[in-house]
Amino acid sequence: MWRGERTALRMLRVNLSTESLKDETIDEETAKKFVGGRGIGVKILYDELKAGIDPLSPENKLIFMTGPATGTVFPASGRFHVITKSPLTGGIGDSNCGGNWGPELRFAGFDGIIVEGKAKDPVYLWIKNGAGELKSAEEYWGLGVWDTEDRIQKELGEKRAKLASIGPAGEKLVLIAGIMNDKHRAAGRAGVGAVMGSKKLKAVVVRGERKPAVFDPDGLSRVVEKAIQKLKENAVTGEGLPKLGTPILINVINESGALPTRNFQTGVFPGADKISGETLQKTILTGTKPCWGCPIACGRVSKVTEPPYQVEGEGPEYETDWSLGAMCGVDDLNAITKAHNICDEMGIDPISLGSTVACAMELYEKGLIPKEKLGGMELKFGNPQAIVELAWRTGIRSGFGDEIAQGSKRLAESYGAPELAMHVKGLELPAYDPRGIKGHGLGYATSNRGGCHLRAYMIAPEILGIPEKLDPLTPNGKAKWVIAFQDIFSMADSLVICKFLTFALTADDLTALSNPVTGWNWSVDDFNKTGERIYNIERMFINREGFSRKDDTLPERLLKEPMPEGPAKGHVVELDQMLDEYYLLRGWEDGRPTAEKIEELGLR
Amino acid sequence: MWRGERTALRMLRVNLSTESLKDETIDEETAKKFVGGRGIGVKILYDELKAGIDPLSPENKLIFMTGPATGTVFPASGRFHVITKSPLTGGIGDSNCGGNWGPELRFAGFDGIIVEGKAKDPVYLWIKNGAGELKSAEEYWGLGVWDTEDRIQKELGEKRAKLASIGPAGEKLVLIAGIMNDKHRAAGRAGVGAVMGSKKLKAVVVRGERKPAVFDPDGLSRVVEKAIQKLKENAVTGEGLPKLGTPILINVINESGALPTRNFQTGVFPGADKISGETLQKTILTGTKPCWGCPIACGRVSKVTEPPYQVEGEGPEYETDWSLGAMCGVDDLNAITKAHNICDEMGIDPISLGSTVACAMELYEKGLIPKEKLGGMELKFGNPQAIVELAWRTGIRSGFGDEIAQGSKRLAESYGAPELAMHVKGLELPAYDPRGIKGHGLGYATSNRGGCHLRAYMIAPEILGIPEKLDPLTPNGKAKWVIAFQDIFSMADSLVICKFLTFALTADDLTALSNPVTGWNWSVDDFNKTGERIYNIERMFINREGFSRKDDTLPERLLKEPMPEGPAKGHVVELDQMLDEYYLLRGWEDGRPTAEKIEELGLR
Repeated sequence: MWRGERTALRMLRVNLSTESLKDETIDEETAKKFVGGRGIGVKILYDELKAGIDPLSPENKLIFMTGPATGTVFPASGRFHVITKSPLTGGIGDSNCGGNWGPELRFAGFDGIIVEGKAKDPVYLWIKNGAGELKSAEEYWGLGVWDTEDRIQKELGEKRAKLASIGPAGEKLVLIAGIMNDKHRAAGRAGVGAVMGSKKLKAVVVRGERKPAVFDPDGLSRVVEKAIQKLKENAVTGEGLPKLGTPILINVINESGALPTRNFQTGVFPGADKISGETLQKTILTGTKPCWGCPIACGRVSKVTEPPYQVEGEGPEYETDWSLGAMCGVDDLNAITKAHNICDEMGIDPISLGSTVACAMELYEKGLIPKEKLGGMELKFGNPQAIVELAWRTGIRSGFGDEIAQGSKRLAESYGAPELAMHVKGLELPAYDPRGIKGHGLGYATSNRGGCHLRAYMIAPEILGIPEKLDPLTPNGKAKWVIAFQDIFSMADSLVICKFLTFALTADDLTALSNPVTGWNWSVDDFNKTGERIYNIERMFINREGFSRKDDTLPERLLKEPMPEGPAKGHVVELDQMLDEYYLLRGWEDGRPTAEKIEELGLR
Repeated sequence: MWRGERTALRMLRVNLSTESLKDETIDEETAKKFVGGRGIGVKILYDELKAGIDPLSPENKLIFMTGPATGTVFPASGRFHVITKSPLTGGIGDSNCGGNWGPELRFAGFDGIIVEGKAKDPVYLWIKNGAGELKSAEEYWGLGVWDTEDRIQKELGEKRAKLASIGPAGEKLVLIAGIMNDKHRAAGRAGVGAVMGSKKLKAVVVRGERKPAVFDPDGLSRVVEKAIQKLKENAVTGEGLPKLGTPILINVINESGALPTRNFQTGVFPGADKISGETLQKTILTGTKPCWGCPIACGRVSKVTEPPYQVEGEGPEYETDWSLGAMCGVDDLNAITKAHNICDEMGIDPISLGSTVACAMELYEKGLIPKEKLGGMELKFGNPQAIVELAWRTGIRSGFGDEIAQGSKRLAESYGAPELAMHVKGLELPAYDPRGIKGHGLGYATSNRGGCHLRAYMIAPEILGIPEKLDPLTPNGKAKWVIAFQDIFSMADSLVICKFLTFALTADDLTALSNPVTGWNWSVDDFNKTGERIYNIERMFINREGFSRKDDTLPERLLKEPMPEGPAKGHVVELDQMLDEYYLLRGWEDGRPTAEKIEELGLR
């Protein structure tokens, strides 16, 4: 999507074992079928990866993708997508990230990068205006993300260069390590940072000056103008998110009785108000920070002035506020903010960190983790020291941090209580208890990458009433909604744009916005069908790795232990019922697309 | 000193570059001249090291030495000495350490180890019952000291094996990194851990079953019995140290107006009682822990139960209690204990860490360190977060920890205020302000390894009245005392025994104890003369590296800024006067032994 080559994608293929760099293009036909971002990424992975390879071996590939919208005037298009085989789940490992890196990669002349093999000694990849080279990262190996950004920018004399890099966590193959950019933005989930670490790739540094071409600039401007108007007028994107950021949800979800508390033991957190977006705004908030070209600017900038958790940085966001807070029973916003920033610096996924710490807390309280392992730290719910110290320790795999580093599934299994890990397919669940939001539970269970709220954000209809209000406590009729969300979100991740747009914009709007970018003149059906294709090829990837209906499930607790209190009191998730309906509507059997479905989607 | 070879020392020479291990002996004549430990170590270094080599290059040598007393019934003989060229000072870098490692090395059949060269990939040295081998330490590289001990013991299936190892600090060439054993015992000073890291030597692991031979076991038993009686009857070794440990000194030294506070800005710390040995005993103390075979057992075992500084470990000892406490204006014993234990785990010298943090605090308060470097941490005196967070950060060289890692001299110079680093010859001063203990100041200035209280412990006569009480505020007549202490302590470090014995035992006693060990039948004069020889060859080593009278000095503050309050109010250190007398008595000129002195000591 540059030099006017409208739909051919320009890729850089980097083999770290042979130190070879090669320009490649992806043809228009493939681009039309998989768009960009997540769609193209999973297509490459499906075609090129042998089933059953070790995700931390040189055979794995790490793909950085932008989409046709990235870095254009399309609103909230400052993102990119990372796709690989996950070392945490063994399935698809992909993660989407904001900031400035994605647009800058396109400005530097590439739509995506395929990283293969493994470097002998640590390297970083430096791409400027269409040309890439590998450079030694020996002197940066071991550094935190923030130091890495500063020092590599200094070495290159390029203050405006953008880095996607790993911290000590990724280097040390922490299975919950992320890839960071702009110091605080994380492609956090599924252990993508560990894959980068296994390849001894410290950073991908990009800088460029060419604007990505779009098919119809004037047409795009016109629809963008309308879209921005809608975003401004919308209560969520125009007021809630800009003002209170994502932590606006702490009180909302807690009042719905679905804020997972103390490792999902309940859905009501007594300390919610102390860690809410409102409290954050009144106490430690110092500013907001948008991703590239975003009119919403949900990112929080904050400063804690009181010891022992002084820090000047960013966050917390809703997910980290919850994972390091309610999930661990911690109501100390300062400690949460400190731990959030340590995760950013060390390159750790704070969702999985908090959830794994919470799992450890429950194991400890149940007497399953011996005291001797903890060096005097009382690993009880509510202990703010635990989240801060274990963030450091996990980053460097020191002491008990080495056990947190493996994620909750392996941790709970190692102590003989696998039911205490709150994960799907090995990926830790995010900040919504599906006993209080049933459709969202179906979304968790059927997410191709595992426990994830960003494959089908059922919070919108079930809690926020967008585009219409559904009863969160019934399983009935949720499957079609989940599927619709999964397909449209597959498109969002492939275009690549921010999903927050969908609070204000419909599939029609997004189709109207993407047509002047691509020139494909799609109907909404084309748009949704393409999303469906992407969701299905992902599913085919994980099927090939051994995933099936048995893995489309939820932690036992959510299926069998009734919610003990609050609006969802007495509820469990009626998963099987929803799942049957879901598979029927998807055209899947036993969690696998049927031959007919595969044929229909052109995925044979 | 085994297999009945009475005075020939059995050494293991390990060249990491060539992976060769060689048994060697040191003949009786050399042993009689330099004894063992520090004496033999500096002799080897003097003979084998070219002047001017880079301490972190393969050309440096790292020597682990026991002495003839080590691991025998000689009381408090559970120690060893590390000798190398210091990367922190550029002079002699040596450090003495307790615990169990020293005796175990002798049990394993060696009196000492000379490590040369540099391993290609991380290794550890495993010595059992007279045989050594190099083993891969790839999987331990990056680990903290505690994990390293546990895991290597597990790999070897040797729970009783003792490790001397480095943490991340040593690996990352932190110039204030130490070598640790028994999890909490540190050969901490002068950056010996960085030398070990530069050689990619993660640990030296020892295990053995042969008791070291002594010349006259029965004779030794008889004098030992008397010595132990004296130790028990002595107020310091029989009661004060066992009961309150070294932190007993916090109140004593503070009441003398010589507890260095806020980077030596004053000698009176208002928070002293909160961090005193008495308070420690009443609050966090859970037990005591002796070094091998020691009747004193000064080591503190402690547990902090309150977040955010929960920890179960050891310490603080007087020096760390002070350096992380009063020196930084911190009166939070929990935070001090936490930081102490992080230093132990990361392998950092807590004296130099605390002093360098204090230096940074003064630089910051004076506006010389920009806020942006600190990520929101207010680096002001009294902030307990600073000592804890900077202990982590220094261990992994992250953020501002990377600047602390270079020690106070380089730090203060880099901010244009070298006068704010409280060091001698580059080594941070310990816990006594010499404006209130003048002779101790001469000891600091003339210490061959730089700022050190363990070359001449003038606190004994000037504060404690051992063996007689001197006026701490006069410089008169101190030189001869300093010399006597330096020589007897050279012997203590060479025998190798604990200096705390000298609270109760005189040079006569020590001579009487050492004769049945060595069979040399020395007079006290022989004993002292040998100490003098060792002190002089050390001096010749540092002279060759460029040190002279100009380096036998103190920080400007101690020479020019009168103590602002307390018993030493108005005092500075009259160093020149003491130094002239000292050189005269030493037979030195311009800080160098004269040709006659060298001849007299047989050091030509």
